[in-house]
Amino acid sequence: MKNETSFAVRYAETDQMGVVHHSNYLVWFEVGRTNFMNATGFNYAELEKNGMLAPVIDANLQYIQPAKYGDHVTIMTTLAEYNGIRMTYYYEVSNEKSEILVKGNTSHTIVKKEAFKPVRLRNVLPDMHDTYKRIVEEGL
Amino acid sequence: MKNETSFAVRYAETDQMGVVHHSNYLVWFEVGRTNFMNATGFNYAELEKNGMLAPVIDANLQYIQPAKYGDHVTIMTTLAEYNGIRMTYYYEVSNEKSEILVKGNTSHTIVKKEAFKPVRLRNVLPDMHDTYKRIVEEGL
Amino acid sequence: MKNETSFAVRYAETDQMGVVHHSNYLVWFEVGRTNFMNATGFNYAELEKNGMLAPVIDANLQYIQPAKYGDHVTIMTTLAEYNGIRMTYYYEVSNEKSEILVKGNTSHTIVKKEAFKPVRLRNVLPDMHDTYKRIVEEGL
Amino acid sequence: MKNETSFAVRYAETDQMGVVHHSNYLVWFEVGRTNFMNATGFNYAELEKNGMLAPVIDANLQYIQPAKYGDHVTIMTTLAEYNGIRMTYYYEVSNEKSEILVKGNTSHTIVKKEAFKPVRLRNVLPDMHDTYKRIVEEGL
Repeated sequence: MKNETSFAVRYAETDQMGVVHHSNYLVWFEVGRTNFMNATGFNYAELEKNGMLAPVIDANLQYIQPAKYGDHVTIMTTLAEYNGIRMTYYYEVSNEKSEILVKGNTSHTIVKKEAFKPVRLRNVLPDMHDTYKRIVEEGL
Repeated sequence: MKNETSFAVRYAETDQMGVVHHSNYLVWFEVGRTNFMNATGFNYAELEKNGMLAPVIDANLQYIQPAKYGDHVTIMTTLAEYNGIRMTYYYEVSNEKSEILVKGNTSHTIVKKEAFKPVRLRNVLPDMHDTYKRIVEEGL
Repeated sequence: MKNETSFAVRYAETDQMGVVHHSNYLVWFEVGRTNFMNATGFNYAELEKNGMLAPVIDANLQYIQPAKYGDHVTIMTTLAEYNGIRMTYYYEVSNEKSEILVKGNTSHTIVKKEAFKPVRLRNVLPDMHDTYKRIVEEGL
Repeated sequence: MKNETSFAVRYAETDQMGVVHHSNYLVWFEVGRTNFMNATGFNYAELEKNGMLAPVIDANLQYIQPAKYGDHVTIMTTLAEYNGIRMTYYYEVSNEKSEILVKGNTSHTIVKKEAFKPVRLRNVLPDMHDTYKRIVEEGL
Protein backbone atom coordinates (compact mmCIF):
# COMPACT_ATOMS: atom_id res chain seq x y z
CA MET A 1 0.00 0.00 0.00
CA LYS A 2 1.21 3.49 -0.81
CA ASN A 3 -0.21 6.99 -0.86
CA GLU A 4 0.58 9.67 -3.44
CA THR A 5 -0.14 13.32 -2.64
CA SER A 6 0.57 16.12 -5.12
CA PHE A 7 0.72 19.90 -4.82
CA ALA A 8 2.44 22.96 -6.21
CA VAL A 9 5.55 24.30 -4.47
CA ARG A 10 4.73 27.46 -2.48
CA TYR A 11 6.80 30.60 -2.94
CA ALA A 12 7.26 30.89 0.82
CA GLU A 13 8.96 27.47 0.78
CA THR A 14 11.91 28.76 -1.26
CA ASP A 15 15.04 30.34 0.19
CA GLN A 16 17.61 32.68 -1.32
CA MET A 17 19.44 29.69 -2.84
CA GLY A 18 16.51 29.79 -5.31
CA VAL A 19 15.24 26.36 -4.29
CA VAL A 20 12.94 24.87 -1.62
CA HIS A 21 14.48 25.21 1.86
CA HIS A 22 15.56 21.77 3.07
CA SER A 23 13.41 21.90 6.24
CA ASN A 24 10.18 21.91 4.20
CA TYR A 25 10.56 18.31 3.10
CA LEU A 26 9.78 17.26 6.68
CA VAL A 27 6.55 19.28 6.38
CA TRP A 28 5.78 17.58 3.06
CA PHE A 29 6.52 14.14 4.52
CA GLU A 30 3.96 14.97 7.23
CA VAL A 31 1.36 15.87 4.60
CA GLY A 32 2.05 12.52 2.92
CA ARG A 33 1.83 10.68 6.26
CA THR A 34 -1.50 12.34 7.13
CA ASN A 35 -2.93 11.22 3.79
CA PHE A 36 -1.45 7.72 4.09
CA MET A 37 -3.10 7.38 7.50
CA ASN A 38 -6.42 8.72 6.19
CA ALA A 39 -6.24 6.25 3.30
CA THR A 40 -5.95 3.37 5.78
CA GLY A 41 -9.11 4.63 7.48
CA PHE A 42 -7.50 6.28 10.52
CA ASN A 43 -7.70 10.00 10.93
CA TYR A 44 -4.81 11.66 12.74
CA ALA A 45 -6.97 14.63 13.81
CA GLU A 46 -9.39 12.17 15.47
CA LEU A 47 -6.55 10.27 17.11
CA GLU A 48 -5.38 13.51 18.76
CA LYS A 49 -8.90 14.32 19.94
CA ASN A 50 -8.77 10.97 21.75
CA GLY A 51 -5.69 12.16 23.67
CA MET A 52 -3.05 10.39 21.60
CA LEU A 53 -0.11 11.78 19.64
CA ALA A 54 2.38 10.27 17.19
CA PRO A 55 5.60 12.27 17.74
CA VAL A 56 8.61 11.80 15.47
CA ILE A 57 11.50 9.98 17.13
CA ASP A 58 13.91 10.09 14.24
CA ALA A 59 14.11 11.41 10.70
CA ASN A 60 16.57 10.87 7.85
CA LEU A 61 16.63 12.75 4.57
CA GLN A 62 18.67 12.42 1.39
CA TYR A 63 18.60 15.45 -0.86
CA ILE A 64 19.21 14.42 -4.47
CA GLN A 65 17.95 17.38 -6.47
CA PRO A 66 16.19 20.52 -5.25
CA ALA A 67 12.49 21.25 -5.79
CA LYS A 68 11.79 24.72 -7.20
CA TYR A 69 8.96 27.23 -7.23
CA GLY A 70 6.91 26.38 -10.32
CA ASP A 71 7.31 22.62 -9.73
CA HIS A 72 4.36 20.41 -8.96
CA VAL A 73 5.63 17.73 -6.58
CA THR A 74 4.35 14.31 -5.55
CA ILE A 75 4.99 12.77 -2.14
CA MET A 76 4.88 8.96 -2.21
CA THR A 77 4.43 7.50 1.29
CA THR A 78 4.63 3.89 2.43
CA LEU A 79 4.84 2.12 5.79
CA ALA A 80 8.31 0.59 5.84
CA GLU A 81 8.36 -1.01 9.31
CA TYR A 82 6.04 -1.60 12.25
CA ASN A 83 6.74 -3.65 15.37
CA GLY A 84 3.74 -2.94 17.56
CA ILE A 85 5.27 0.17 19.17
CA ARG A 86 7.38 1.91 16.57
CA MET A 87 6.35 2.63 12.99
CA THR A 88 8.61 3.87 10.20
CA TYR A 89 7.28 5.62 7.12
CA TYR A 90 9.29 5.92 3.92
CA TYR A 91 8.88 8.84 1.50
CA GLU A 92 9.93 9.85 -1.99
CA VAL A 93 9.39 13.36 -3.33
CA SER A 94 9.38 13.61 -7.11
CA ASN A 95 8.66 16.26 -9.75
CA GLU A 96 6.46 16.17 -12.87
CA LYS A 97 9.23 14.42 -14.83
CA SER A 98 9.16 11.64 -12.18
CA GLU A 99 12.68 12.58 -11.10
CA ILE A 100 13.22 11.72 -7.43
CA LEU A 101 14.23 14.86 -5.59
CA VAL A 102 14.35 13.77 -1.95
CA LYS A 103 14.05 10.41 -0.14
CA GLY A 104 13.61 9.90 3.56
CA ASN A 105 11.98 8.20 6.48
CA THR A 106 10.55 9.12 9.85
CA SER A 107 9.90 6.88 12.85
CA HIS A 108 7.11 7.43 15.36
CA THR A 109 5.64 5.98 18.50
CA ILE A 110 2.14 6.55 19.81
CA VAL A 111 2.06 8.37 23.15
CA LYS A 112 -0.69 9.56 25.47
CA LYS A 113 -0.77 13.35 25.51
CA GLU A 114 -0.39 13.78 29.28
CA ALA A 115 2.38 11.24 29.81
CA PHE A 116 4.27 11.55 26.48
CA LYS A 117 5.32 7.88 26.99
CA PRO A 118 5.08 5.23 24.19
CA VAL A 119 2.17 2.80 24.38
CA ARG A 120 1.46 -0.46 22.54
CA LEU A 121 -0.79 0.45 19.62
CA ARG A 122 -2.70 -2.83 20.11
CA ASN A 123 -3.86 -1.61 23.55
CA VAL A 124 -5.11 1.81 22.49
CA LEU A 125 -6.07 1.43 18.83
CA PRO A 126 -6.44 -2.31 18.06
CA ASP A 127 -7.94 -1.73 14.59
CA MET A 128 -5.04 0.48 13.56
CA HIS A 129 -2.59 -2.08 14.95
CA ASP A 130 -4.19 -4.85 12.83
CA THR A 131 -4.19 -2.70 9.69
CA TYR A 132 -0.57 -1.55 10.11
CA LYS A 133 0.58 -5.12 10.85
CA ARG A 134 -1.13 -6.37 7.71
CA ILE A 135 0.29 -3.56 5.52
CA VAL A 136 3.85 -4.26 6.66
CA GLU A 137 3.48 -8.04 6.29
CA GLU A 138 2.15 -7.68 2.77
CA GLY A 139 5.14 -5.50 1.85
CA LEU A 140 5.08 -2.21 -0.06
CA MET B 1 7.56 51.77 27.90
CA LYS B 2 9.09 49.91 24.99
CA ASN B 3 10.95 46.66 24.45
CA GLU B 4 13.84 46.13 22.03
CA THR B 5 14.76 42.62 20.95
CA SER B 6 17.63 41.92 18.54
CA PHE B 7 18.70 38.86 16.58
CA ALA B 8 20.37 37.78 13.36
CA VAL B 9 18.20 37.01 10.32
CA ARG B 10 17.97 33.25 9.76
CA TYR B 11 18.76 31.77 6.35
CA ALA B 12 15.48 29.82 6.41
CA GLU B 13 13.63 33.15 6.66
CA THR B 14 14.73 34.23 3.18
CA ASP B 15 12.92 33.42 -0.04
CA GLN B 16 14.10 33.29 -3.64
CA MET B 17 13.63 37.06 -3.94
CA GLY B 18 16.85 37.14 -1.89
CA VAL B 19 15.18 38.88 1.08
CA VAL B 20 13.22 37.85 4.18
CA HIS B 21 9.81 36.42 3.25
CA HIS B 22 7.12 38.91 4.27
CA SER B 23 5.26 36.43 6.54
CA ASN B 24 8.21 36.24 8.94
CA TYR B 25 7.69 39.77 10.24
CA LEU B 26 4.55 38.50 12.01
CA VAL B 27 6.75 35.89 13.68
CA TRP B 28 9.24 38.60 14.67
CA PHE B 29 6.45 40.83 16.00
CA GLU B 30 5.42 37.89 18.17
CA VAL B 31 8.95 37.54 19.52
CA GLY B 32 8.90 41.26 20.34
CA ARG B 33 5.47 40.95 21.98
CA THR B 34 6.59 38.01 24.14
CA ASN B 35 9.56 40.01 25.37
CA PHE B 36 7.48 43.15 25.90
CA MET B 37 5.06 41.13 28.03
CA ASN B 38 7.90 39.50 29.98
CA ALA B 39 9.38 42.95 30.61
CA THR B 40 6.10 44.08 32.20
CA GLY B 41 6.30 41.08 34.53
CA PHE B 42 3.71 38.87 32.79
CA ASN B 43 4.81 35.67 31.19
CA TYR B 44 2.80 34.52 28.18
CA ALA B 45 3.79 30.86 28.68
CA GLU B 46 2.37 31.09 32.25
CA LEU B 47 -0.78 32.80 31.03
CA GLU B 48 -1.44 29.86 28.68
CA LYS B 49 -0.81 27.35 31.47
CA ASN B 50 -3.64 29.10 33.32
CA GLY B 51 -5.99 28.37 30.41
CA MET B 52 -5.88 31.74 28.70
CA LEU B 53 -4.79 32.71 25.21
CA ALA B 54 -4.20 36.03 23.46
CA PRO B 55 -5.14 35.37 19.81
CA VAL B 56 -4.48 37.97 17.12
CA ILE B 57 -7.66 39.62 15.83
CA ASP B 58 -6.06 41.87 13.26
CA ALA B 59 -2.63 42.67 11.88
CA ASN B 60 -1.32 45.42 9.61
CA LEU B 61 2.13 45.61 8.09
CA GLN B 62 3.96 48.21 6.02
CA TYR B 63 7.01 46.94 4.20
CA ILE B 64 9.47 49.78 3.64
CA GLN B 65 12.74 47.98 2.90
CA PRO B 66 13.51 44.26 3.03
CA ALA B 67 15.63 42.60 5.71
CA LYS B 68 18.36 40.32 4.37
CA TYR B 69 20.37 37.36 5.51
CA GLY B 70 23.45 38.79 7.19
CA ASP B 71 21.43 41.60 8.82
CA HIS B 72 21.06 41.88 12.55
CA VAL B 73 17.57 43.25 13.19
CA THR B 74 15.92 44.95 16.16
CA ILE B 75 12.21 44.67 16.93
CA MET B 76 10.91 47.66 18.90
CA THR B 77 7.57 46.89 20.58
CA THR B 78 5.19 49.23 22.39
CA LEU B 79 1.61 49.01 23.63
CA ALA B 80 -0.31 51.48 21.46
CA GLU B 81 -3.85 51.00 22.78
CA TYR B 82 -5.71 49.15 25.52
CA ASN B 83 -9.39 49.46 26.43
CA GLY B 84 -9.85 46.69 28.97
CA ILE B 85 -10.65 44.04 26.37
CA ARG B 86 -8.60 44.74 23.31
CA MET B 87 -4.90 45.57 23.23
CA THR B 88 -2.92 46.82 20.25
CA TYR B 89 0.84 46.49 20.02
CA TYR B 90 2.93 48.60 17.63
CA TYR B 91 6.21 47.37 16.15
CA GLU B 92 9.16 48.70 14.20
CA VAL B 93 11.79 46.42 12.70
CA SER B 94 15.11 48.13 11.97
CA ASN B 95 18.59 47.09 10.85
CA GLU B 96 22.05 47.91 12.26
CA LYS B 97 22.02 51.27 10.48
CA SER B 98 18.77 52.12 12.34
CA GLU B 99 16.89 52.12 9.05
CA ILE B 100 13.26 51.18 9.61
CA LEU B 101 12.45 48.14 7.47
CA VAL B 102 8.91 47.25 8.50
CA LYS B 103 6.25 48.87 10.71
CA GLY B 104 3.08 47.26 11.91
CA ASN B 105 0.58 46.52 14.63
CA THR B 106 -1.42 43.59 15.92
CA SER B 107 -4.55 43.62 18.08
CA HIS B 108 -5.44 40.91 20.56
CA THR B 109 -8.09 39.94 23.04
CA ILE B 110 -7.69 37.55 25.94
CA VAL B 111 -9.85 34.44 25.63
CA LYS B 112 -10.36 31.33 27.74
CA LYS B 113 -8.98 28.31 25.94
CA GLU B 114 -12.19 26.25 26.00
CA ALA B 115 -14.60 29.00 24.96
CA PHE B 116 -12.35 31.09 22.70
CA LYS B 117 -14.51 34.11 23.70
CA PRO B 118 -13.02 37.47 24.78
CA VAL B 119 -12.98 38.22 28.51
CA ARG B 120 -12.33 41.45 30.45
CA LEU B 121 -8.67 41.35 31.45
CA ARG B 122 -9.59 42.97 34.79
CA ASN B 123 -11.63 39.88 35.71
CA VAL B 124 -9.01 37.26 34.91
CA LEU B 125 -5.68 39.03 35.34
CA PRO B 126 -6.26 42.21 37.38
CA ASP B 127 -2.54 42.95 37.83
CA MET B 128 -1.93 42.80 34.11
CA HIS B 129 -4.97 45.02 33.53
CA ASP B 130 -3.56 47.66 35.91
CA THR B 131 -0.12 47.55 34.35
CA TYR B 132 -1.40 47.76 30.76
CA LYS B 133 -3.75 50.61 31.67
CA ARG B 134 -0.90 52.50 33.28
CA ILE B 135 1.46 51.93 30.30
CA VAL B 136 -1.10 53.24 27.82
CA GLU B 137 -2.04 56.25 29.94
CA GLU B 138 1.59 57.22 30.34
CA GLY B 139 2.06 57.08 26.58
CA LEU B 140 4.75 55.25 24.64
CA MET C 1 -12.79 37.68 -11.94
CA LYS C 2 -11.84 35.63 -8.91
CA ASN C 3 -9.74 32.57 -8.18
CA GLU C 4 -10.57 29.87 -5.64
CA THR C 5 -7.84 27.57 -4.38
CA SER C 6 -8.52 24.79 -1.86
CA PHE C 7 -6.28 22.59 0.26
CA ALA C 8 -6.11 20.77 3.58
CA VAL C 9 -4.57 22.52 6.58
CA ARG C 10 -1.10 21.14 7.32
CA TYR C 11 -0.20 19.96 10.81
CA ALA C 12 2.97 22.08 10.74
CA GLU C 13 0.79 25.16 10.29
CA THR C 14 -0.78 24.80 13.75
CA ASP C 15 0.64 26.24 16.95
CA GLN C 16 0.15 25.28 20.57
CA MET C 17 -3.05 27.34 20.71
CA GLY C 18 -4.46 24.37 18.73
CA VAL C 19 -5.21 26.48 15.64
CA VAL C 20 -3.35 27.67 12.54
CA HIS C 21 -0.62 30.17 13.42
CA HIS C 22 -1.66 33.62 12.23
CA SER C 23 1.42 34.13 10.03
CA ASN C 24 0.39 31.27 7.72
CA TYR C 25 -2.51 33.22 6.23
CA LEU C 26 0.03 35.42 4.44
CA VAL C 27 1.48 32.23 2.93
CA TRP C 28 -2.01 31.10 1.90
CA PHE C 29 -2.78 34.53 0.41
CA GLU C 30 0.38 34.08 -1.67
CA VAL C 31 -0.79 30.68 -2.92
CA GLY C 32 -4.11 32.30 -3.91
CA ARG C 33 -2.29 35.19 -5.61
CA THR C 34 -0.06 32.81 -7.61
CA ASN C 35 -3.12 30.94 -8.84
CA PHE C 36 -5.03 34.14 -9.58
CA MET C 37 -2.10 35.34 -11.68
CA ASN C 38 -1.81 32.00 -13.47
CA ALA C 39 -5.55 32.12 -14.20
CA THR C 40 -5.10 35.50 -15.92
CA GLY C 41 -2.43 33.92 -18.11
CA PHE C 42 0.64 35.37 -16.36
CA ASN C 43 3.01 33.08 -14.57
CA TYR C 44 4.83 34.54 -11.59
CA ALA C 45 7.71 32.03 -11.89
CA GLU C 46 8.22 33.24 -15.49
CA LEU C 47 8.01 36.88 -14.44
CA GLU C 48 10.87 36.32 -11.99
CA LYS C 49 12.94 34.55 -14.63
CA ASN C 50 12.62 37.77 -16.64
CA GLY C 51 14.23 39.70 -13.78
CA MET C 52 11.10 41.13 -12.23
CA LEU C 53 9.66 40.73 -8.75
CA ALA C 54 6.36 41.71 -7.13
CA PRO C 55 7.25 42.44 -3.49
CA VAL C 56 4.55 43.10 -0.90
CA ILE C 57 4.39 46.73 0.22
CA ASP C 58 1.61 46.38 2.72
CA ALA C 59 -0.64 43.69 4.17
CA ASN C 60 -3.75 43.80 6.36
CA LEU C 61 -5.46 40.83 7.97
CA GLN C 62 -8.64 40.39 9.97
CA TYR C 63 -8.86 37.18 11.92
CA ILE C 64 -12.49 36.20 12.43
CA GLN C 65 -12.33 32.52 13.33
CA PRO C 66 -9.30 30.22 13.40
CA ALA C 67 -8.64 27.48 10.85
CA LYS C 68 -7.81 24.10 12.39
CA TYR C 69 -5.96 20.94 11.45
CA GLY C 70 -8.53 18.71 9.78
CA ASP C 71 -10.13 21.67 7.98
CA HIS C 72 -10.13 21.95 4.23
CA VAL C 73 -9.84 25.66 3.42
CA THR C 74 -10.57 27.74 0.33
CA ILE C 75 -8.70 30.94 -0.54
CA MET C 76 -10.77 33.31 -2.68
CA THR C 77 -8.59 35.91 -4.42
CA THR C 78 -9.62 38.97 -6.40
CA LEU C 79 -7.85 42.05 -7.73
CA ALA C 80 -9.31 44.94 -5.72
CA GLU C 81 -7.32 47.88 -7.12
CA TYR C 82 -4.77 48.62 -9.82
CA ASN C 83 -3.42 52.02 -10.85
CA GLY C 84 -0.66 51.15 -13.29
CA ILE C 85 2.01 50.85 -10.60
CA ARG C 86 0.40 49.44 -7.49
CA MET C 87 -1.95 46.46 -7.37
CA THR C 88 -4.01 45.35 -4.38
CA TYR C 89 -5.36 41.83 -4.03
CA TYR C 90 -8.21 40.96 -1.69
CA TYR C 91 -8.56 37.54 -0.06
CA GLU C 92 -11.10 35.54 1.93
CA VAL C 93 -10.22 32.25 3.60
CA SER C 94 -13.21 30.03 4.34
CA ASN C 95 -13.81 26.50 5.61
CA GLU C 96 -16.02 23.66 4.26
CA LYS C 97 -19.08 25.23 5.89
CA SER C 98 -18.38 28.43 3.90
CA GLU C 99 -17.66 30.30 7.13
CA ILE C 100 -15.22 33.14 6.51
CA LEU C 101 -12.21 32.65 8.75
CA VAL C 102 -9.83 35.41 7.68
CA LYS C 103 -10.09 38.40 5.32
CA GLY C 104 -7.23 40.50 4.09
CA ASN C 105 -5.41 42.32 1.35
CA THR C 106 -1.87 42.81 0.12
CA SER C 107 -0.48 45.54 -2.11
CA HIS C 108 2.41 45.07 -4.50
CA THR C 109 4.51 46.93 -7.00
CA ILE C 110 6.56 45.40 -9.78
CA VAL C 111 10.29 46.01 -9.39
CA LYS C 112 13.37 45.05 -11.37
CA LYS C 113 15.44 42.58 -9.38
CA GLU C 114 18.70 44.58 -9.44
CA ALA C 115 17.23 48.00 -8.61
CA PHE C 116 14.30 46.96 -6.37
CA LYS C 117 12.56 50.17 -7.56
CA PRO C 118 8.89 50.22 -8.77
CA VAL C 119 8.31 50.35 -12.52
CA ARG C 120 5.18 51.04 -14.58
CA LEU C 121 3.72 47.67 -15.48
CA ARG C 122 2.74 49.04 -18.91
CA ASN C 123 6.44 49.50 -19.75
CA VAL C 124 7.65 46.06 -18.75
CA LEU C 125 4.61 43.79 -19.17
CA PRO C 126 2.07 45.58 -21.39
CA ASP C 127 -0.19 42.52 -21.74
CA MET C 128 -0.42 42.08 -18.00
CA HIS C 129 -1.13 45.80 -17.61
CA ASP C 130 -4.05 45.57 -20.07
CA THR C 131 -5.48 42.48 -18.40
CA TYR C 132 -5.21 43.89 -14.88
CA LYS C 133 -6.75 47.21 -15.99
CA ARG C 134 -9.66 45.39 -17.59
CA ILE C 135 -10.22 43.14 -14.53
CA VAL C 136 -10.37 46.12 -12.17
CA GLU C 137 -12.61 48.16 -14.47
CA GLU C 138 -15.06 45.29 -14.81
CA GLY C 139 -15.23 44.98 -11.01
CA LEU C 140 -14.91 41.81 -8.91
CA MET D 1 36.34 23.56 18.07
CA LYS D 2 32.65 23.97 18.77
CA ASN D 3 30.11 26.77 18.63
CA GLU D 4 27.29 27.32 21.08
CA THR D 5 24.33 29.51 20.10
CA SER D 6 21.42 30.16 22.46
CA PHE D 7 17.97 31.63 22.00
CA ALA D 8 14.41 31.47 23.30
CA VAL D 9 11.91 29.15 21.58
CA ARG D 10 9.48 31.16 19.42
CA TYR D 11 5.74 30.67 19.79
CA ALA D 12 5.40 30.20 16.03
CA GLU D 13 7.74 27.20 16.29
CA THR D 14 5.25 25.20 18.34
CA ASP D 15 2.51 22.99 16.92
CA GLN D 16 -0.74 21.74 18.39
CA MET D 17 1.11 18.89 20.11
CA GLY D 18 2.21 21.67 22.48
CA VAL D 19 5.89 21.29 21.58
CA VAL D 20 8.29 22.61 18.91
CA HIS D 21 7.42 21.20 15.47
CA HIS D 22 10.10 18.70 14.46
CA SER D 23 11.02 20.54 11.22
CA ASN D 24 12.32 23.56 13.16
CA TYR D 25 15.37 21.72 14.44
CA LEU D 26 16.77 21.81 10.89
CA VAL D 27 16.33 25.60 11.01
CA TRP D 28 18.10 25.72 14.38
CA PHE D 29 20.92 23.49 13.08
CA GLU D 30 21.34 26.03 10.28
CA VAL D 31 21.59 28.89 12.78
CA GLY D 32 24.26 26.92 14.64
CA ARG D 33 26.09 26.16 11.38
CA THR D 34 26.08 29.85 10.35
CA ASN D 35 27.60 30.82 13.68
CA PHE D 36 30.11 27.97 13.60
CA MET D 37 31.25 29.15 10.17
CA ASN D 38 31.44 32.78 11.31
CA ALA D 39 33.50 31.68 14.31
CA THR D 40 36.07 30.07 11.97
CA GLY D 41 36.32 33.40 10.14
CA PHE D 42 34.22 32.49 7.07
CA ASN D 43 30.97 34.26 6.49
CA TYR D 44 28.29 32.27 4.69
CA ALA D 45 26.55 35.44 3.44
CA GLU D 46 29.87 36.49 1.82
CA LEU D 47 30.41 33.04 0.34
CA GLU D 48 27.02 33.30 -1.43
CA LYS D 49 27.86 36.77 -2.73
CA ASN D 50 30.86 35.14 -4.39
CA GLY D 51 28.54 32.77 -6.25
CA MET D 52 28.91 29.72 -4.06
CA LEU D 53 26.34 27.77 -2.06
CA ALA D 54 26.56 24.99 0.52
CA PRO D 55 23.40 22.91 -0.04
CA VAL D 56 22.46 20.12 2.35
CA ILE D 57 22.89 16.66 0.85
CA ASP D 58 21.67 14.64 3.80
CA ALA D 59 20.29 15.21 7.27
CA ASN D 60 19.63 12.90 10.20
CA LEU D 61 17.82 13.79 13.40
CA GLN D 62 17.14 11.95 16.65
CA TYR D 63 14.37 13.43 18.76
CA ILE D 64 14.94 12.60 22.42
CA GLN D 65 12.76 15.11 24.26
CA PRO D 66 10.71 17.97 22.84
CA ALA D 67 11.63 21.65 23.24
CA LYS D 68 8.76 23.85 24.46
CA TYR D 69 7.73 27.47 24.30
CA GLY D 70 9.27 29.10 27.36
CA ASP D 71 12.51 27.09 26.97
CA HIS D 72 15.79 28.76 26.23
CA VAL D 73 17.73 26.35 24.00
CA THR D 74 21.41 25.99 23.09
CA ILE D 75 22.62 24.62 19.77
CA MET D 76 26.09 23.07 20.01
CA THR D 77 27.71 22.69 16.57
CA THR D 78 30.91 20.90 15.60
CA LEU D 79 32.51 19.80 12.35
CA ALA D 80 32.40 16.00 12.46
CA GLU D 81 33.93 15.13 9.07
CA TYR D 82 35.56 16.82 6.11
CA ASN D 83 37.19 15.15 3.11
CA GLY D 84 37.90 18.08 0.79
CA ILE D 85 34.49 17.95 -0.89
CA ARG D 86 31.94 16.91 1.68
CA MET D 87 31.62 18.33 5.18
CA THR D 88 29.44 16.95 7.97
CA TYR D 89 28.34 19.05 10.92
CA TYR D 90 27.11 17.50 14.16
CA TYR D 91 24.59 19.25 16.42
CA GLU D 92 23.12 18.89 19.89
CA VAL D 93 20.15 20.95 21.05
CA SER D 94 19.82 21.22 24.83
CA ASN D 95 17.66 23.14 27.31
CA GLU D 96 18.59 25.25 30.39
CA LYS D 97 18.93 22.08 32.47
CA SER D 98 21.54 20.81 29.96
CA GLU D 99 19.21 18.00 28.94
CA ILE D 100 19.87 16.97 25.34
CA LEU D 101 16.65 17.33 23.37
CA VAL D 102 17.70 16.59 19.80
CA LYS D 103 20.90 15.33 18.15
CA GLY D 104 21.65 15.32 14.47
CA ASN D 105 23.98 15.94 11.58
CA THR D 106 23.86 17.47 8.13
CA SER D 107 26.26 16.96 5.22
CA HIS D 108 27.02 19.58 2.62
CA THR D 109 29.06 20.15 -0.49
CA ILE D 110 30.10 23.50 -1.92
CA VAL D 111 28.59 24.18 -5.35
CA LYS D 112 28.76 27.06 -7.81
CA LYS D 113 25.38 28.76 -8.01
CA GLU D 114 24.95 28.41 -11.81
CA ALA D 115 26.04 24.79 -12.14
CA PHE D 116 24.88 23.40 -8.77
CA LYS D 117 27.74 20.84 -9.06
CA PRO D 118 30.13 20.07 -6.16
CA VAL D 119 33.60 21.63 -6.32
CA ARG D 120 36.78 20.97 -4.33
CA LEU D 121 36.86 23.52 -1.53
CA ARG D 122 40.65 23.82 -1.94
CA ASN D 123 40.15 25.22 -5.45
CA VAL D 124 37.57 27.87 -4.59
CA LEU D 125 38.22 28.75 -0.95
CA PRO D 126 41.72 27.50 -0.03
CA ASP D 127 41.75 29.25 3.37
CA MET D 128 38.49 27.64 4.38
CA HIS D 129 39.79 24.27 3.18
CA ASP D 130 42.89 24.62 5.40
CA THR D 131 40.86 25.69 8.41
CA TYR D 132 38.29 22.89 8.05
CA LYS D 133 41.02 20.29 7.52
CA ARG D 134 42.80 21.46 10.65
CA ILE D 135 39.59 21.47 12.74
CA VAL D 136 38.74 17.91 11.75
CA GLU D 137 42.27 16.63 12.29
CA GLU D 138 42.41 18.17 15.74
CA GLY D 139 39.16 16.43 16.66
CA LEU D 140 36.06 17.99 18.26
